[in-house]
Amino acid sequence: MDQTPAILPELKSLRDSIDNIDAAIIHMLAERFRCTQRVGVLKAEHELPAADPAREARQVSRLRELASTAQLDPDFAEKYLAFVVREVIRYHEATARELSEKTAR
Amino acid sequence: MDQTPAILPELKSLRDSIDNIDAAIIHMLAERFRCTQRVGVLKAEHELPAADPAREARQVSRLRELASTAQLDPDFAEKYLAFVVREVIRYHEATARELSEKTAR
Repeated sequence: MDQTPAILPELKSLRDSIDNIDAAIIHMLAERFRCTQRVGVLKAEHELPAADPAREARQVSRLRELASTAQLDPDFAEKYLAFVVREVIRYHEATARELSEKTAR
Repeated sequence: MDQTPAILPELKSLRDSIDNIDAAIIHMLAERFRCTQRVGVLKAEHELPAADPAREARQVSRLRELASTAQLDPDFAEKYLAFVVREVIRYHEATARELSEKTAR
């Protein structure tokens, strides 16, 4: 028995919510990147390392706790942070390279 | 010349913003997971496949466009979606396994 049509309205409604949430997250990520771009410039100008393990450890434990409270798997929150930090560090390193190339000219 | 102390207040302020944004994103992800958990149950009950390439293609192009408008690297938006979808599919597959084990009992 094919029950697909019966579930379609509920699936459609859930997907509409997911699309709205994704749009919100993309805009939050855009704002987060505006902040980390400025951090990247500051770090590159002052020759600070791109990664900061002590800060990352504090972020991980804080986000795991927030996730628990929101009934989200803490491992997923930790993976989210690892993913974003990895992308940000790539940006920081590129910024540092550009700056040192500019200085070398 | 060590200029680190001079940049600390700005770095601190940017990090406070980043922490607030991360808290907001974690809560949006928690809500997103509530939706996809329900989608997972629906798909498992109705034996629909966990992945849906046509929907994912539409999501990718929509999020890339939103990212462009928000001046976020569209590749980053695509990576965000790939990361979240990967995690969600893992959850869907686990749900389907649990359900078929329950049915087999």
